[in-house]
Order: sequence, then structure tokens, then C-alpha cells
Amino acid sequence: MEDVARLTGVSLSTVSRVIREPHRVAEPTRLKVETAIASTGYVPNLVASSLKSERSRLVACVVPSVEHSFIADVVRGASEVLRPQGFQLMLATSDFRPEEEEDVVHAFLSRRPDAIILTGLTHTDRTRAMLGAAGIPVVEVGNLSDQPIDMVVGFSNREAQKQLTTAMIDAGRRHIGYLLHDGSAQNERSRDRYNGYRAALTERGIACDDRLTTEVEFSYRGGAVGLGQLLAQGRPIDALCCSNDIIALGALYELQRRGIAVPDTIAIAGFDDHEASSQCVPPLSTVRIPRLLMGREAGRLIEQTLAGEPPTSKIVDVGFALQIRQTF
Amino acid sequence: MEDVARLTGVSLSTVSRVIREPHRVAEPTRLKVETAIASTGYVPNLVASSLKSERSRLVACVVPSVEHSFIADVVRGASEVLRPQGFQLMLATSDFRPEEEEDVVHAFLSRRPDAIILTGLTHTDRTRAMLGAAGIPVVEVGNLSDQPIDMVVGFSNREAQKQLTTAMIDAGRRHIGYLLHDGSAQNERSRDRYNGYRAALTERGIACDDRLTTEVEFSYRGGAVGLGQLLAQGRPIDALCCSNDIIALGALYELQRRGIAVPDTIAIAGFDDHEASSQCVPPLSTVRIPRLLMGREAGRLIEQTLAGEPPTSKIVDVGFALQIRQTF
Repeated sequence: MEDVARLTGVSLSTVSRVIREPHRVAEPTRLKVETAIASTGYVPNLVASSLKSERSRLVACVVPSVEHSFIADVVRGASEVLRPQGFQLMLATSDFRPEEEEDVVHAFLSRRPDAIILTGLTHTDRTRAMLGAAGIPVVEVGNLSDQPIDMVVGFSNREAQKQLTTAMIDAGRRHIGYLLHDGSAQNERSRDRYNGYRAALTERGIACDDRLTTEVEFSYRGGAVGLGQLLAQGRPIDALCCSNDIIALGALYELQRRGIAVPDTIAIAGFDDHEASSQCVPPLSTVRIPRLLMGREAGRLIEQTLAGEPPTSKIVDVGFALQIRQTF
Repeated sequence: MEDVARLTGVSLSTVSRVIREPHRVAEPTRLKVETAIASTGYVPNLVASSLKSERSRLVACVVPSVEHSFIADVVRGASEVLRPQGFQLMLATSDFRPEEEEDVVHAFLSRRPDAIILTGLTHTDRTRAMLGAAGIPVVEVGNLSDQPIDMVVGFSNREAQKQLTTAMIDAGRRHIGYLLHDGSAQNERSRDRYNGYRAALTERGIACDDRLTTEVEFSYRGGAVGLGQLLAQGRPIDALCCSNDIIALGALYELQRRGIAVPDTIAIAGFDDHEASSQCVPPLSTVRIPRLLMGREAGRLIEQTLAGEPPTSKIVDVGFALQIRQTF
């Protein structure tokens, strides 16, 4: 700070004011001081100032993974809303495990973020306790709940998968397998989708054959391996639902490798509308979820709450849309 | 803290020691206190303690994007090394823009991380100045440099693309197009790959035809659009290199849609060895880069430096491996 004052010929208190309350400093002075600050590489210590102000301008975002995930668009959407308001979004990954999420939430909370975005509704008791005690806005993103920790932005995964499966049945399919991604016991989004598939079969009077469901690694290879397992049983199968597009694309490639016609012999559907799904050949039928919108809505809820304007509703349903393409 | 002391019947100073120096507290006491802390949802304020200790146990990681990126494995690798040492990895995205990276670095540095991982070598002067002034370990990941800001873990993008293109030429291709991802002027990894392609042509006595290069959006659709542009010129083209696998997969799908035989009529190659590339049909020839290893090495450099053991070398070359599959 002394260097900056010397370089610019202004007082130390002016330098300090440029850092803390830039809008209260005349523009020519502010620009001169900011340029000098930039040239020295000086970065104010927000650790110190957030102790005083109790505002860190940090929004923490816990995501399951930075791979294969619907999360990139969610993060972009939240960032679009929050960055212009001076918030910095920081991410950490839970690897789809609630215990890991607990560690990550603890690490974030110990740095006193202004708000936190979590993925999904499955959390440990301690995560809930910590968030309750923290008293900051919390937004759960991806699935709906009547009783969110604080606020929730999502859609009905169960209903979406039910509608997609029903469309498959109505297109004439009767022996519909299901590839579920692993760790679904701890992932209520994936579980809800599976329950939606079962509900669709039941509603159309088709028995659920558990042997046509298998749990696979969340990867392209997982989809290929899972399809192979179902086919190896030798049971009739004329369609396959997958709990996400990555697994569905892996299964589609495996069908192509085996020379099995899609959709003539086996129909296939994914979930998420991954970017590749509209591009691959044939393009994949799936469910489009409004990822960017979920992020924007999460950002909006946080912004409003921190501005002291409680949102009209703490539960935001962003809906979904079936994308029926050429795989059934 | 008072609640915890009351619940457990230990003194306030013991509770405090469990939080600050758990290894110095007898295990039964520590467990009792930690359980009680967990039940209250109390999270110690590291903002306060990092002011005193000057150690935040935070490693900041600036990544270009959380989509389509080689970064998921890098983050996983760094996490594997650093998490067991008590470090928390936090990410923020630069959207491939150096000015955005500057903002993100500023935001991180103002929270006093113990170390920082950056992607690539292209940074603004102010980013360099801030990092120089911060005096913490900095690791640049993804490309090699003789003069890193501090430390670097990477491989030669130029040499990798040169070897891949040479393999294509040696397989008999002469009219090789190139799809470059946009923003390459600011992305030295992408630029180096393109220069490697040109070097391979020159070395084999093939003229570089600039009309066979086009810049495209970093997406599946970008690959499809770029291929369409090159074909629309009506010039001979018997092969296509792409600056990453996502673009190559988009081009491959477009070739399939147009009924153009791969590799008979047009060969194709990507870069990165995306998981889909070994799975799609036909599987894509590409360059495998040791992403997980880059992350681990970055973590190891940080760990060693912070432990006061300067690493043997501040420049780590992790190499690369051609993956010649069935697209040429």
C-alpha cells in the first residue's frame, strides 16, 4: 500500500478507500490508484476484511463431479447471475458420495461463504446440521423436494423418466431393460428416474422384470458392459432405458459394434440431453433438462435472499422436455 | 464451543485443542469431542485461524472450463495427493479467457490459498505480477515451458500433434485439413498443436494450404460445422486433424451423416483421448495425454514445496502417447 501511495502521490487513506469503497473515490484518482495496484501485484486480504464485514462475496458450489455432468451449464448459469453482482463462484467435488460432500461443505463453511449451492437432496445428517447452524442461503439443485434444507431448484426426475418410458411403450416396445448408474442408492436423482421407469411399466400393465435391470459404472464403457450383461441372459429385450446419456451412448456404440439395428431391433433412450446426443448417428432420444436455467434460478434465489428480498417461492420447478429423436 | 464443552464435560481449552491440533489429543477424548462438534453443526472459522497461522490449507485451481475438458482427471489426480494431507482443492473457471483468469486469480489470492494450480501458460501481466507478489507455490499444468511462473507439469503439445500428423502422412494421406478450436490466439496449447501439424507437413514436403484450416466452436457441433465448411470448398481433402477429440467426434458424426466412409474416403484424428474416443464406432485415433499423472505431479510439487523440500526439478514432462485406432 505504501508503494502504491508513493507511486501515485495520493495518501495512504485514499489508497485504502479505493480498495474498500471504490465507488466513493473520484474516477481519475481511482483509475490511477487501481493501475498502480495492478502493477505491484498487490491483492487485498479478504480473509481480514471478511472477518470484519462478515461478507466474503464467495458462493460455494458443491458438485458431484466435473466430468460427464449436467453441472457445467448449472455453474455457467449461476455465474451469469452472480458474477456481475461481485460474487465469486468456487467449486469443489463430492465424487457422488455424501460423506465426501460433508467434508467439502465443512471446508467451505470454515471459509464463511455468503451462500452455498448443493447438488441433489441426499446429504448426511451432519451436512444438514452444519448448514442449519451456518444460517446462510442454501440452494439444492437438480431434484425437487417439499422440504428443502432452505431453497431448491429442480424438476421431477421420476416424472420425466416415467413420461419417456411411456413414450417408448406407446411406440410398441414391451421388453424394456434399464441401465442404472452405480451409487444410485446414494443418488436420489438416479433412483427417482428408475422408479419412474417402473411406474410407467406398471401403469401400462407390463411386469417389471428385475433381470432386465443392471447397475453400471457411470461411463461410456459402463453402458457397453451393461448392455452386454443384459444380452448375455438371452431373454427377450427390444428396448433400453438408461439413467443418463453417457451410459446410453456407450450402449448405442456397443449395439453398433455388434451390428444390432437401432431402433429396429433394440430401441434406446438416455436422460440429460448431453451435447453429443443430438449430434451422434442416429441421434439419441432423451430428456432435456434446463441446466442453464437451473443455475440462473439458483443464482437469482441467492442474490434476492442476500439482498434482503425473500423470494416469492423457495421451491422452483424448472420442468423438463422429452426429446424424441431417432433411437426409438 | 461452550455447548461442546458442556456436552462432553471437557474444558474449553481441550475443545479448542481438538479443533486446532487434533493429533495432540488422546483418541477417546478427541472422538468424544469431535462427535459433539458434529452434532451441533459447529464449523470452526478458518478465516480467523488462517489470519493467525498464515496457512489456509486451501489449494486453488483455475481451470478453463468444467465441460469437455481434460481437467476432470487433472483435478482428480491433484486431489488424490493433496486431500490426504489435509488440503482442500477449490476450483474456479476462466472460460478460456486470460482476463477472466486474472479475476479468478485475484479472487482466490484475496483468500490466501497455500498454493495455486493454473491451466496453461497464457496469463495476463497482472496475473503474473499478483502471483509473483503472493509468494506461494504456483504450478502451471498442460504445456511445458522453460520459464514457468514457478513450476510446470506438462508435455509438448507441438511435438504430439507433429507425431500424429506425421503418422497420418505416412499412412498415405496428402490433403489434410485442420479444425482448430476458437480462441486459439489466447490458448497456447491449441496454437502449439496447430504449429505441430504445420511442422509435420513441412517436414514431409507437403505445402500448407491455409484454406484447409478453419477455426470452430469447441463443441461437437463445431466439428460438424467446420467439416462442412472445408467440404463446401470443393478442394481435395482426404484427412482431417482436429485440435481435440470433441471436435473430431463432431466431425466423425458429420461424415457418418453424409455417408462419407471413414477412413477410406476421409481419415480423422483427434487430440486428448476423451473417454468416448475409444468407445465410438470406429474408434478414434488420437493422442493420449496423462491427465491423472499431471494432476498427481502438480499435487506432489505443491506438497513438497510446502513441506520445505524443494523438488528436484520445477519442470516435469509427463509425455504423451499416440493412440492409432481405426479412423486412419
